[in-house]
Amino acid sequence: MQPLPPDPLVSRRAARVAPFLAMDVLAAAAVRERRGDAVVHMEVGQPSAPAPRAAIAAAQAALAAGRIPYTEALGIAPLRERIARHYAEAYGVAVAPERVVVTTGSSAGFVLAFLSLFDAGRRVAIAAPGYPAYRSVLQALDLAPVGLALRAEDGFVPNPAALRAAHAAAPLAGLLVMSPANPSGTMIGAAGLAALGQACRELGLRLISDEIYHGLTYGAPAATALAHDDGAVIINSFSKYYCMTGWRIGWMVVPEALVRPIERLAQNLYISAPYLSQVAALAAFEATEELEAVKADYARARALLLNELPALGLGAVHPADGAFYLYADVARLTNDSIGFCRRMLDEAGVAATPGLDFDPEAGAHHLRFSFAGGEAEAHEAVRRLRGWLA
Amino acid sequence: MQPLPPDPLVSRRAARVAPFLAMDVLAAAAVRERRGDAVVHMEVGQPSAPAPRAAIAAAQAALAAGRIPYTEALGIAPLRERIARHYAEAYGVAVAPERVVVTTGSSAGFVLAFLSLFDAGRRVAIAAPGYPAYRSVLQALDLAPVGLALRAEDGFVPNPAALRAAHAAAPLAGLLVMSPANPSGTMIGAAGLAALGQACRELGLRLISDEIYHGLTYGAPAATALAHDDGAVIINSFSKYYCMTGWRIGWMVVPEALVRPIERLAQNLYISAPYLSQVAALAAFEATEELEAVKADYARARALLLNELPALGLGAVHPADGAFYLYADVARLTNDSIGFCRRMLDEAGVAATPGLDFDPEAGAHHLRFSFAGGEAEAHEAVRRLRGWLA
Repeated sequence: MQPLPPDPLVSRRAARVAPFLAMDVLAAAAVRERRGDAVVHMEVGQPSAPAPRAAIAAAQAALAAGRIPYTEALGIAPLRERIARHYAEAYGVAVAPERVVVTTGSSAGFVLAFLSLFDAGRRVAIAAPGYPAYRSVLQALDLAPVGLALRAEDGFVPNPAALRAAHAAAPLAGLLVMSPANPSGTMIGAAGLAALGQACRELGLRLISDEIYHGLTYGAPAATALAHDDGAVIINSFSKYYCMTGWRIGWMVVPEALVRPIERLAQNLYISAPYLSQVAALAAFEATEELEAVKADYARARALLLNELPALGLGAVHPADGAFYLYADVARLTNDSIGFCRRMLDEAGVAATPGLDFDPEAGAHHLRFSFAGGEAEAHEAVRRLRGWLA
Repeated sequence: MQPLPPDPLVSRRAARVAPFLAMDVLAAAAVRERRGDAVVHMEVGQPSAPAPRAAIAAAQAALAAGRIPYTEALGIAPLRERIARHYAEAYGVAVAPERVVVTTGSSAGFVLAFLSLFDAGRRVAIAAPGYPAYRSVLQALDLAPVGLALRAEDGFVPNPAALRAAHAAAPLAGLLVMSPANPSGTMIGAAGLAALGQACRELGLRLISDEIYHGLTYGAPAATALAHDDGAVIINSFSKYYCMTGWRIGWMVVPEALVRPIERLAQNLYISAPYLSQVAALAAFEATEELEAVKADYARARALLLNELPALGLGAVHPADGAFYLYADVARLTNDSIGFCRRMLDEAGVAATPGLDFDPEAGAHHLRFSFAGGEAEAHEAVRRLRGWLA
């Protein structure tokens, strides 16, 4: 038999996946730091505050006890029960613990949601601008992301009319929403979520709600899609409000009929979430006072930046209702957000993320500033940018 | 517009994924234990020994320092460097640290390997019997597992002729091998790996080598496919030899051209492996004395079971060269391995895994016994089985 020509070295589906520009900025910042230059980090959505003391203590106790085993694929029972109780306490929504799936960060939540809901080739609506991994994970799993262009004048909120129009153009299988949103900080109110849920039911679409920034709001609290649509798939994480990024721990709430299919996928694709992180996450629910103090620091940073960035000429800044980002339209300064970020890092020592991470079109004239570093970092960023832009 | 009929609730690709029978046995054993009955656990491949003291101390120190951040998607540099050095020390093979990818367990390694190498619809050869997640993960990612039936009389070693025959029947895109193997403990020697690598090159197939049981050998050490095929993708983990299951930490060694595509996938699908686990894994390389003592306990358990199981009439047991399993052909006792395991758990309090987890055909008359619990557990299992089978 004749040898066949070899396949391409890299699959087409992997070749489609774009790099995370924020991670590339992080790498460039690290190069500067190794040269001895201090960098103000506003490029990644990572709290500078440590994990809550109670979470650290719980992990230390588990290490001292010595047994760090695999767990049930859906997570340890006390954590699933505590998360279910959180829905009653925070939102007044009843959730059975059996519907809670503990995941290895929200990253695993997306993979499990996409694989369990959608077959290859299906189209899934996402917001533009939006979290870049949505697009990439959908593409890696042979799904087609369909960007719903959000407008600053609508407050970056997706609306049912745009969803219906996209579905009419070519049928969609699902909608993924995020509130508070990355990068804009926009929130979809209860009425907006109800209207989107209603449109999804009418059109036969599955609704996935990424609620990773819940808890981080600067006015009204965030509404959960679960209150309006019991069939929605909810994705959340301990990385943001709970300051537990590197622990890689999150959760989903899913309709009962999806529990067993997701359990089978999770057994095979993940086995279980990290044990220490599960134990620590359980304790993190008791750290509200500490976490609210961290949030107060974000609120001060947000107020400072909302005031100062426009004064510096850094364009129109959307007044984030939640999360810890400001999304600035810098069209008056540049239409090359990647080059602009590079110069800002090189010349001012301030790292921010090019808008192109979030939106392949309008992102060319947007920047995202993370204030997860708190007020002191924000202050230093403003001082440096004032000198640089003068 | 008329509403479309809703899609099926669960995607076809998720519906294809079979449950992990070992996990179902584990759940049934837990029910017995909640009733107060002691169970001898031989159903899961999990060391009963704790993680090495040095690994626990490293995690404790990181917790005390307080910062548990995201890391680079490919892992922290010291761990990548240490893993690269391990190839020089253990195998005499030079590996550049840049080719090492730190993963969230070998589970993530399979997802990253399959997605980066194979497009949907491609056929990938795996061994039957073999690790059940191979089949399930391939199916979830729209790939077709092609079982190469291994025979006890060949020592359960896959051979190039069977591979060529399968490829001639319908083209394959890759071959996944494991040595030492789960469930049989079989090892593929250096010559066997070289021949399989050569066949893959001739046929244009990608070779993936799962080396998770390296270090756990009871005679000659295991050979790495990397020594024979620099283009092979190697998957490994800290879960088995290093006793770090619940930490969810592993690694890959990949050809240089795959590093950046896998980095982009990992950024988006995982962000990074858990930080504490990376720090602890680095320290685990210094725990050889402790880990060799654990292995000596496995060796005693293996010797005991190899002697006693056949004497009990538990069929032909393949003399495992590595890993911590014995795979027993119990055709004289049953052709319903699931029912047999259930009765053995209910009546003897011994949990083992039905062969059907590993082989959809011959698995009906096979059982897998894990001796990862060591000699004392093995002794108690034999005592109980002797009474039950009498």
